[in-house]
This record gives sequence, structure tokens and C-alpha cells, in this order.
Amino acid sequence: MTQELQALIKHLRQQLPANRLLLESEQCAVYACDALAVYSETPALVVLAESEAEVQTVVKAAARFQVPLVARGAGTGLSAGALPKRDGMLLVTSRMREILELDPTRRIARVQPGVVNARVSEAARVHGLYYAPDPSSHIACSVGGNVAENAGGVHCLKYGVTVNNVQSLRLVDARGEILCMGAHRGEQTGMDLLALVHGSEGCLGIVTEITLSLTPMPEKTRTLLAVYDKVRPACDAVSAIIRAGIIPAAMEMMDHFAIQAAEAFCQPGYGQGANAVLLIDLDGHPLEVAAELEQVRTLLALSGAARVQEAADETQRQRWWKGRKSAFPAIGRLSPDYYCIDGTVPRGRIGDVLEGIQALSDRYGLRVSNVFHAGDGNLHPLILFDASLPGELEKTERLAADILALCVDVGGTITGEHGVGREKYDQMALQFSDAEIGQFLRVKAALDPQQLFNPDKHVPTLARCREYRQLRARQAGEPAHE
Amino acid sequence: MTQELQALIKHLRQQLPANRLLLESEQCAVYACDALAVYSETPALVVLAESEAEVQTVVKAAARFQVPLVARGAGTGLSAGALPKRDGMLLVTSRMREILELDPTRRIARVQPGVVNARVSEAARVHGLYYAPDPSSHIACSVGGNVAENAGGVHCLKYGVTVNNVQSLRLVDARGEILCMGAHRGEQTGMDLLALVHGSEGCLGIVTEITLSLTPMPEKTRTLLAVYDKVRPACDAVSAIIRAGIIPAAMEMMDHFAIQAAEAFCQPGYGQGANAVLLIDLDGHPLEVAAELEQVRTLLALSGAARVQEAADETQRQRWWKGRKSAFPAIGRLSPDYYCIDGTVPRGRIGDVLEGIQALSDRYGLRVSNVFHAGDGNLHPLILFDASLPGELEKTERLAADILALCVDVGGTITGEHGVGREKYDQMALQFSDAEIGQFLRVKAALDPQQLFNPDKHVPTLARCREYRQLRARQAGEPAHE
Repeated sequence: MTQELQALIKHLRQQLPANRLLLESEQCAVYACDALAVYSETPALVVLAESEAEVQTVVKAAARFQVPLVARGAGTGLSAGALPKRDGMLLVTSRMREILELDPTRRIARVQPGVVNARVSEAARVHGLYYAPDPSSHIACSVGGNVAENAGGVHCLKYGVTVNNVQSLRLVDARGEILCMGAHRGEQTGMDLLALVHGSEGCLGIVTEITLSLTPMPEKTRTLLAVYDKVRPACDAVSAIIRAGIIPAAMEMMDHFAIQAAEAFCQPGYGQGANAVLLIDLDGHPLEVAAELEQVRTLLALSGAARVQEAADETQRQRWWKGRKSAFPAIGRLSPDYYCIDGTVPRGRIGDVLEGIQALSDRYGLRVSNVFHAGDGNLHPLILFDASLPGELEKTERLAADILALCVDVGGTITGEHGVGREKYDQMALQFSDAEIGQFLRVKAALDPQQLFNPDKHVPTLARCREYRQLRARQAGEPAHE
Repeated sequence: MTQELQALIKHLRQQLPANRLLLESEQCAVYACDALAVYSETPALVVLAESEAEVQTVVKAAARFQVPLVARGAGTGLSAGALPKRDGMLLVTSRMREILELDPTRRIARVQPGVVNARVSEAARVHGLYYAPDPSSHIACSVGGNVAENAGGVHCLKYGVTVNNVQSLRLVDARGEILCMGAHRGEQTGMDLLALVHGSEGCLGIVTEITLSLTPMPEKTRTLLAVYDKVRPACDAVSAIIRAGIIPAAMEMMDHFAIQAAEAFCQPGYGQGANAVLLIDLDGHPLEVAAELEQVRTLLALSGAARVQEAADETQRQRWWKGRKSAFPAIGRLSPDYYCIDGTVPRGRIGDVLEGIQALSDRYGLRVSNVFHAGDGNLHPLILFDASLPGELEKTERLAADILALCVDVGGTITGEHGVGREKYDQMALQFSDAEIGQFLRVKAALDPQQLFNPDKHVPTLARCREYRQLRARQAGEPAHE
């Protein structure tokens, strides 16, 4: 253990109640990874803060003793954004779990960062309101983590991602001071640091309080299933619906393998032979939903769907959605391991990119299944592999990098909703120029001059970018699987 | 003229075609102010750039010769954000006025910064689309200026302000390099600098290209007028409507003086005796609008409106809106000068703040009229004064500062949509702590290390904040009008 860490621990023992600190390595090992468990490192020290003042104490101590500080919520992240540092401190905010205020008039909930996403909607339900962003981990993930990764969910097509549903927040900066950031519907005075903090993965400061926008529950939700013999027409239908001016609450797509896996797992009733399904929620005023439903039904039929069907009742609707929501574990049953990628492409290019992914899958000899937020162009290719085979994890990571490069090539991004974290640290070099990365680094330095907040995540150094681009160039000349 | 300026001019004469440079002071004087003409200063040099490459040339020259650079679009701004520096260069982007791409499938328009706001909607109309943000200057203001001030408009209640309607942009940074910033619906990779640039008033870089989201034209718009004997119940109705889960396309309020002025100017037919009117647009699917209209009508009646009426036809609708839209010039006819303030308050506090403004108005002996975006809580108090009376402008500015302080006191902001500029440079000290201002200054320095972009605007120095807070404290002990 470094001298700095020893001094820090001594200091924090004086400043904080004993039950806030975990020092035994068995205790700390519990926090060694987030939900992307291939990256794992046990921190020297875990602090379970219970208040904003305690967060300030911890941040000031990190600055004083020059110890790296990684923040973490519920640990459900999928990009190793909460991966600890061995010689660092992990600050856990999950004990800060109070809903401080819920005001149906202003339609806001003011919460601590450890509040679980789904709890906000539960608390708001009595007022006919809910919190719209719904990552698939919403029964476990915390709002602080949602801000850190700018989380999305199946309904972000219509209701936006986290940044679109946060009105203001409080952040402990590198000096341990409180910054209030906020706006009425984008009417931000001064500099809009609020958006900057979203998706910044704890690299700029520690969020201690968040004021969320609540959304009125839709009066009516109706659900359509469209089944296709081919993938491409399903992709075209997605564009056609948006082009018609309709924004479904959700518009999800699953490919042949995912459909088979879901049918084997929970029998949603998509039909065994289907090569693609679209699952579409329309919500709003009943009369508007009825009109949109007919329009979407027509567009789906025109696109060449083999079958278009409305859910007859809530039971059927839930069955269909269960198939979609359990697609990942369902696929997981059919493969020793799987790796979920998160890229975004322009909607009009989904068909091209799926074909490109298939070609890469063939080249690498690794099966890829696609279950994704089609309306947003947010792909989640799942690479099926077996980590026990030598070299297969590396091959998988290389295929994943190729898929992300493909997304960037068509004008997309390397992450839709899972964040950069450690996982896509290198791929930032594919997405951004040196001028852009340089600017990110300068902004990071402006907020975190000692570079103690979540080091080696989110924004790579320019040297690392150059190395990675050189590596990619070398790999381009090599065969795909050695 | 400084040596730096002389060297800069010599350099730019070599780098740019002759018709890009204005050097004669009569020519430069045309650009001495924006629409807040009480602030005025003739720049040493005006550059009318015609391309992104020329903007790069200009920015690199500013950096090389250490000359301050103020950027300006159409000059319709209301906070002196485009006020030039006497020893500096003014960069005008209004010749960069091409719509580069308009794609109805992706529902985007990619435009140069000098494109006039209303032209985007005109070009999109054939596809059933429009660009939603509509500042009252939309027939003249440019999209680049809209980004710089994060402009709003009467319809931003439902459709958001500029930042909510921009997908990506290109910016020339302090090094003269191009940064691409952008996102699909908030799904930003890397750092979200896109939002940071909105409302940054040319202090962080020069925007050279903007990709705008286009919105489908609503199928139906219906308009309600509610007339009140008292102001407070009208304020309460605004909250009640939003609380019911209805987001009108627009919800505007006018007070007694504004109503009288409008009636005298263009006879909108609100009724002479009215003490407040609400003008409400509902738009969307015809069936949804019909249902919402009945609900809003009921809420207005319950709130105690003396009269609630739907526009019988498009002619009546346009007449009502003309009254609202011409309220400023209509009031302008009744007073030698007027000064428009732009503060935002929580919707539930509008009634309190209007009463507070009335009390201040009485204390200063200056009439204040209120015409504003009630749905957003975005107030536009108009102070009526006579600049030819000695000391009256100063008294007006002090009343304005008191009104903004009142907005901040109830949890509001010092600007809703007009920006900070030079006008509210000092009032930033009322809104933000030293920790927050310090953070803004460090972010500014990260993007503009030589402090050449629009100096003395937007974010004041900490010393200036202290001075202003001291001044306010002294004034609090003095009588309001000396």
C-alpha cells in the first residue's frame, strides 16, 4: 500500500464514522467490478458515503493525499466505468438513497444519487407520473449511475435519455466545493455544465443530488408485433415510421437467433421461423394512439412484413415484451459467454450495418446476434464466445472493435447508452480527432486539475490514441483470426 | 490603433479577398451594436467571412496577433452579446447563408450559421416539416446567433429551446481547428460539449455549421383566449394546466398595460377592461387537441377567468396572436424608451414575482408592463422610461437588476432566452457562487486559453463579482431613487 493511501486512510478514520470505511480485501473485492466483469480490480479502500458532506470530506481527502478516486452507484454499468484502481479509493453512493422531494405540481423528484431508478416511478405513480428513462437494469441501477453513463432504455426513442430528463444537479468538484447546475427546460444561465456532467463517468466530479423531470403516465399504450422473413425490410420499416412523423414509445428489433433463443426461453409467441421481429409501443391519448396504430400497421404491411398483429390484451403484450427483455439471458443460455456491444448508427444505415456485422461474424467465425433499440439506431450486437478457449476473448474484443469501427464509418458512435468506461477507452480514438480529444482533455483538466477522478477512463491520452490507431492499422494488414 | 491590430490587418489583407474586410470607421459603425443599442462600440475591423476556411484563417490570425475576436450573426440579440471591442475584430457570419442539406428522412437541416431562422422552416415546409424554435426575431435572426444565445420563442414550452433542436455542429476552436460535436438525441459519445456551446455567446469558439432537428408540422392547432379581472388567477391557471399533464404549444400572458397598448395598436379584441389575458395554443393530432382543449377550457373556467373563448377561425386566431407579437412595439409607442428584461422563475412563483415587480415599480416610480412566456415562467418585464431625463437610464438599470435579483431569490434565473452578454455580465454574481463562476472561468480557459473570444462577456471575473456584490450591498442601504 502506498504511503499516500496509508495517510489517507488514517485521515478518513478520523473524519468519518467507522462503518463508512471498508479496508479488508475480502470486503473490497465485492466492489472489484461492475456488470462488465471481464475488467476487475480490487480497490485498496471502499468508502460508503451517507451524505453530501461525507462526499465532500472524501473528495477533499483524495485531493490532499493525491489518491485516485473512482465513484460507483449500484455497479450495473456495462462499460467498466466503475472499475476501481488498485492503489485508489472507491466511493460508493448507494447508501445515499433518499427521495428528498417529490412535487407533482412542478413534476419533479429531487433524489440522492443512490436512489434506484425504478423507485422514482413507484413513488410518483400515485400522482399519475413516472420517471421515463428505463435502462434494462432499472430495478437495480441507481440514478447517480444513470447520470454518470447518461443511461437510456427502450423508451428513450420518445422520451429521451437521462440528460433529457434531468433538470438540475449538485456536484462536488475537485476542490470539494458544491456546484449547482441546472436549468428550466434547457434555459440554462451561465455555462451549461449540466449536460457535460451527463455521461462523464465520474471523471469531472461526484454528483450528490439530482432533480429529475417526471412524465405523465400515458393514457393508453398499444403494442404491435411485425414478423419478417428477411432483416432488411424490417430495417426499412423503422425509417418509414419515423419519416411519417410518428415517434413510437419504443421500437425494438430482434434477429433470427434472438427470436429462437427467446422462444426456447419463455415462448413469447413471435413464431419460430421468423428472421426478424419489430416490437412497437405507441402511447399517448387513446384517439391519437388509435390513429397512429392504423398508420404504422399500414407502413409495416407495405414494408413487406409477413405478419402484423396487435397485442390482444395486456397478457399477450407482456409476453411479447418478456421475450424482448429476456433476450440477453435467453441467448446467454445458448453460449458459454456473450459480449454485448453498444453502438449507434443513423437509422437509415441499420440494414447496411447489420449486413456488415454478419460479414465480420463470418470472417471471425464468431456468432453475433442482434437485439436492439431500432428506433434510435442503437445496436446491441451480442458476440457469442467461449472464454475458456485460448485466445477467444481477445478475438471477441477485436471483433467488437471492428463492429464499433463500422458504426463510426457510417456516421454513428461507439456508444449509445452504456458509456465509454474502460471498455471503449481505446475506441475513442476511432471516433474523435486529436483536436477533439485534446479539447476533452483540457476540459477534464479544468474540472479535475490533479487528474484524480476516475483515471484511465472515458477520455484517453493523445499518446494512447496514436498507439491504438497504429495498432488498428497493423491489424488491418493481418488475417482476422490468427 | 494598436500595433497588433495593424499587423493583423496587414496579414488578413494577404489572406482574404478584399471584399471580406471593412476598415473604414463609417462602415464599421454599422456593426457597433446589436439590438440592445444602449451598448455600442465601433470595432477597428469587421471581417465578413464566407466560408469555414475563412473563419479558420480569421481565428488563427486573432491568436497569432493577440487581437480580441467578437463573432456576430444578424445582430438581433437583446443582451449586447455581439457588442464589439474598440481594439478588436468583429467576425460577421451572415454571408455564410447556405442550407447545405435538407433530409426529410432523417428530419434534419444542415445549415451555415448565417442562415436566417425562418428560412429553415420555409425550406422544410414542402416536406411537412419545420424548425421549431421561433424567437420573435425569427424573420431576421440567424441560426448561428440562435446557438450563441440558446434562443427560445413562444413555442419553446413544448418544443424546447435551441439546444433541444440541434443535433450536431462544427466549431472552429481557439487553435483554428475544427471540432465536430454531436449526438443522436442526446446519445453523445465523449464529452457533451454540444450543450456547452449553446448559449456560450461566441466565448468558446466560432460555430461554422449546424445540423438542426426538423419537427413534423402539427396536424391541428387550436387557440384559446382567457380574460381575467385579476392577475393572480391567470398565474394559477398556468400551473394548473401543466399539472394536469398538458403541454400547450404556447401559453402566453399579458398584463393590463400590455393589453391596452395592443388594443390601441392593432385591436386584437381581448377586451379593454381586462387585467390579464392568457393566449394558449394547443397542437397535435386533431382528436388529442379536441380532448385537451376541453380540459384546458374547464381549468381556465375553474381558475376564475371572466371569459374563455376559442378562436372561431384563422383570422381571429391571427388577430389574437398579432396583439401578443406586437405588444413590445405597441408599448413602445406609449413611452419614449423601454427596456426589456428576461428572467425565468418557477411557474408556481409567477404570481408572487409579478407582485414583487409591481412593488419595485412603485418604489422606483417607473412603470413596468409584463408580456411573457407564462408556460415556461420566462418573464419579459418591460420598464418604460425616458432616456432624455438625467439619471433615468441608470435608475432603469437598477430597477432591472432588482427584478433579476428577485427572480434569483425565488429560485429562477437571470435569463430565459436572451443570454447574458454584456447586459447581465454583473448579475451573474447574483446567480452563481464563486466556486461556480471559478469553474466557468476554468472551462472558458480550457477552450480559449488566450482569452480572445468575446472578452468581458458571459462570465465575469471573480474580482468583478465581488465588486458587484459589494455594490448591491451598499445600494440596499440607500433609497431606491436618489
